[in-house]
Amino acid sequence: MTIQSALSGRSKRWGHPGAFMQAVTNMLDPATDAEKAARFASLSRDDRIFHVVLAQQFDTQSIEELCQLSEMIRKIASHRQGNLFLQTLLSDRRAMLYFIQPSTRTFMSFTAASQILGMGYNSVRDPSTSSETKGETEDDTIRVLSQYFDVIIMRHPVEGFAEHVADILNGIPRTIPVVNGGSGKDQHPTQALLDIYTLFKCFTEHNTDTPLTEYSGNPFAGKTVGFVGDLKRGRTVRSLTYLLCRYPGVRLMFMSPPELQIGPDILEYVQRNGIEYEICDELESHIGELDAIYVTRLQDEHDVNGESKSIDYYKFALTHEMAGRFKADLAILHPLPRRHELDPRLDALPQAKYWGQVRNGMWMRSALMAYIFRVDGTIRDHYRNYYAF
Amino acid sequence: MTIQSALSGRSKRWGHPGAFMQAVTNMLDPATDAEKAARFASLSRDDRIFHVVLAQQFDTQSIEELCQLSEMIRKIASHRQGNLFLQTLLSDRRAMLYFIQPSTRTFMSFTAASQILGMGYNSVRDPSTSSETKGETEDDTIRVLSQYFDVIIMRHPVEGFAEHVADILNGIPRTIPVVNGGSGKDQHPTQALLDIYTLFKCFTEHNTDTPLTEYSGNPFAGKTVGFVGDLKRGRTVRSLTYLLCRYPGVRLMFMSPPELQIGPDILEYVQRNGIEYEICDELESHIGELDAIYVTRLQDEHDVNGESKSIDYYKFALTHEMAGRFKADLAILHPLPRRHELDPRLDALPQAKYWGQVRNGMWMRSALMAYIFRVDGTIRDHYRNYYAF
Amino acid sequence: MTIQSALSGRSKRWGHPGAFMQAVTNMLDPATDAEKAARFASLSRDDRIFHVVLAQQFDTQSIEELCQLSEMIRKIASHRQGNLFLQTLLSDRRAMLYFIQPSTRTFMSFTAASQILGMGYNSVRDPSTSSETKGETEDDTIRVLSQYFDVIIMRHPVEGFAEHVADILNGIPRTIPVVNGGSGKDQHPTQALLDIYTLFKCFTEHNTDTPLTEYSGNPFAGKTVGFVGDLKRGRTVRSLTYLLCRYPGVRLMFMSPPELQIGPDILEYVQRNGIEYEICDELESHIGELDAIYVTRLQDEHDVNGESKSIDYYKFALTHEMAGRFKADLAILHPLPRRHELDPRLDALPQAKYWGQVRNGMWMRSALMAYIFRVDGTIRDHYRNYYAF
Repeated sequence: MTIQSALSGRSKRWGHPGAFMQAVTNMLDPATDAEKAARFASLSRDDRIFHVVLAQQFDTQSIEELCQLSEMIRKIASHRQGNLFLQTLLSDRRAMLYFIQPSTRTFMSFTAASQILGMGYNSVRDPSTSSETKGETEDDTIRVLSQYFDVIIMRHPVEGFAEHVADILNGIPRTIPVVNGGSGKDQHPTQALLDIYTLFKCFTEHNTDTPLTEYSGNPFAGKTVGFVGDLKRGRTVRSLTYLLCRYPGVRLMFMSPPELQIGPDILEYVQRNGIEYEICDELESHIGELDAIYVTRLQDEHDVNGESKSIDYYKFALTHEMAGRFKADLAILHPLPRRHELDPRLDALPQAKYWGQVRNGMWMRSALMAYIFRVDGTIRDHYRNYYAF
Repeated sequence: MTIQSALSGRSKRWGHPGAFMQAVTNMLDPATDAEKAARFASLSRDDRIFHVVLAQQFDTQSIEELCQLSEMIRKIASHRQGNLFLQTLLSDRRAMLYFIQPSTRTFMSFTAASQILGMGYNSVRDPSTSSETKGETEDDTIRVLSQYFDVIIMRHPVEGFAEHVADILNGIPRTIPVVNGGSGKDQHPTQALLDIYTLFKCFTEHNTDTPLTEYSGNPFAGKTVGFVGDLKRGRTVRSLTYLLCRYPGVRLMFMSPPELQIGPDILEYVQRNGIEYEICDELESHIGELDAIYVTRLQDEHDVNGESKSIDYYKFALTHEMAGRFKADLAILHPLPRRHELDPRLDALPQAKYWGQVRNGMWMRSALMAYIFRVDGTIRDHYRNYYAF
Repeated sequence: MTIQSALSGRSKRWGHPGAFMQAVTNMLDPATDAEKAARFASLSRDDRIFHVVLAQQFDTQSIEELCQLSEMIRKIASHRQGNLFLQTLLSDRRAMLYFIQPSTRTFMSFTAASQILGMGYNSVRDPSTSSETKGETEDDTIRVLSQYFDVIIMRHPVEGFAEHVADILNGIPRTIPVVNGGSGKDQHPTQALLDIYTLFKCFTEHNTDTPLTEYSGNPFAGKTVGFVGDLKRGRTVRSLTYLLCRYPGVRLMFMSPPELQIGPDILEYVQRNGIEYEICDELESHIGELDAIYVTRLQDEHDVNGESKSIDYYKFALTHEMAGRFKADLAILHPLPRRHELDPRLDALPQAKYWGQVRNGMWMRSALMAYIFRVDGTIRDHYRNYYAF
């Protein structure tokens, strides 16, 4: 059963669960390898990712290419002439940012990436200013927007919705790509890409003399990456874990209150990929072992009955007092926004990488747009001609 | 009596009816030919349309020019070099999209058209973020915006408001054009232009060997165009009818529940122009006669006492079952958004022109902007040099 | 005590007064000259204004430079080639318009200025679409935005907030400038700059043969500038007064109901600078003495108990009946929006400068951006080469 068949005859709007949600669940857990292969094929064109929907679409080669490309763009953009070059690349393209869920960071990051590459953009952020109020289905809204724009970047509260949009777009003559900017509690693949770019950057800078733009290999072998906080409901941890499982020799540590531990589907995925991991119910005693720590906030907006209130989340906060036990090369990441789980007094430490991580998102999203529209080769040529040493 | 005199002394905000609405009514139905001539003159400069307010402003020559120009822009925009050329044309202009009524389609269409021609734009969509909350009259808001922008494109709930804005702008030293993107239940001239462009394209492609960019003539002679649905309250049907009445030999069919039939003012206009028409209270038996069908949704947001609920609107739906009786060259149009009156299973048929119609809106609005800012000659020259065969 | 120390340990959101507001109050009235000097130094880089926070930052030299630059940009922008030149200047920069308070005029003015210089921009206008709903502090929001943008332009309801943002930005590695687009009841320095540019323009045109672009001197000597209306709560009057106090020989007249008179801090500042002034409780008898009149509306949104209702504000309205007593060279200004205090029938008089004042805001804000990003020299060179006579 596919989402399309669940929706056949007449499109349904999200918020009406039933058959739709069941179909989504089936999509998220395809029963057979053949189904899975067909699904990834439907998101690609000519052996290249076309619709960016799931973190699992990215293999080590595409991750490495995108990290290199992000780093090249970052360096090119540090000069005015380089910026002017970058702005020519997508100056005849237009992006639609369809962001139905609140977002500052991801939204602004994508708009900045668009401007870096000269791409026009527009947004739908509040359905109340749109034709939805006249009873249009969201499927039709997508079909209409696809007539005006060259890519749809979306954030949406429904799990699996970006994949559904890929199906809609595959079904009309003028198919344009969709990029998932976060859907439901499930996936946030571009966040995972910027996270792994940040880790790539930290680990290669600490361990090699090769600049990241030239680096090829596995910088994660022998490294311990700790995830701390609300791992059950944080989609960024889920998506990043999918990517890290591509790298043999990485060690994962999931530190959270038992009620908020990472889902069994993820653990099963980790195991299946032969990655070593540990489940812990506290942070304090492990802090000295970590090469990277990924701190996350309590996702209490997903509470049903205020169940978060009984959890002692402060046990999973990274405090100023712990700083003495940090490895010198520790990389502290946080997808932000933060609350009390990450002490602002840590901001000044060299280990604090989270503000750079924010900026890396802009470079990675630029790289991803360049990759989708196949101007990555032009960037690499420009970099090799003017910036490589 | 003019809107200005109705408003003299102190500006009034819309929503305060009385004298204002009476003045609007008088404007919409000028008593004498002299009044009518003066009115159209006030919307023109140097024998060219300046303010785009009413569908009636467009004659066969300007319609033909705009359809040709739309088609040229569409073809030029299919190449990167062509896009870069187009983006130079209005790169030193700025558009204000003053869209007080909800809109996705028209709004996005105008922003895409702006980007195609390189024009900057900004928008006011929600008066609550504006100075209106500090008690400014809407007339003053228009005067202020005219200081920052080179054209005001507006959608507004009040009938005749765009014409009132033309009056305001004519009254200040730095007069810029206004474009009506839909006002009240009355007029939606740019929708009418994109509709007639779509019909022009379908009918010339089916019947001639001349490409639309070279075509001069009347492609509507002998064609039957059916309007179906809520014809009373749909402004798109009204505006398109004004344009079709320019073409002798076209035959119009108005199919709707008696309560929702087209207004007597339109029928009177049709008759006065010597156009053959028919009034029908069902669709089923006429489907095989039609060369084009323009399907519209129930406009129940205009209901006063829920009167739509007692109407069997499904009798005026275009269903999948009817497809067998369609002419091979039938063109199905719909201004969108659609509900149940247009079966999604028809989307895959060659007769379904409504997604292309959406995209045509982007080309037509680009053409209109080019025309208003008098760069249409530059586009025609470019097309003749590089694209004509 | 500084804002930072008031906020130390953990950032507080505005809306939680107490220590924060006390710190702000202290900042606004620094106790010693040394404190004051340190404060202005923290807003500058290399002897040039970097963060634009307070009207008091501008001395006669920077005011004169900015007025000249505004006038040059205005003239260059009157030709297409000039516009294309201007658009190259900041084409690799991006502005964040963080406008938490409603605004049309200032917001649109800054976006137009950005477009004039080719600068990309984006905005946050409604915190409900942002991560604030996830519990982020506003300090962190600023830190995040500073990763994506090259300048933050802000309007905010809290007095002193722009200065606090300058502190935040000074505290992170990638420091970008902040521009105060209006904060609380306190300051609106860019409005003051456009006001003084408008006065500069009027007074030099009336009194000298030197074009403003070449003018160096004090055009205010011997001139009487009247402020009328709600002077207590209008931040534009406060900010403009700071600038006018730079010009010996100007005479200021504050005309308002006693309850709404200008604050004693401003009067003390005026006195300290040796500027002659008069306090009046009516307008009528002074109208003939004025070379400029700055009309303001009743700021009743700041009422606590509807106290404005008992005030006869109409005594402080500029009426059509007064026009006969205007000096021929009188310049009428109004920061807009207006209500009843400025009769629309005055719009047609040569003395009405308020629509031009709106447009001047766009030129002045362009000049300010050019100044901050240090491309003002390029503009002056271009002007001298192509436009000077």
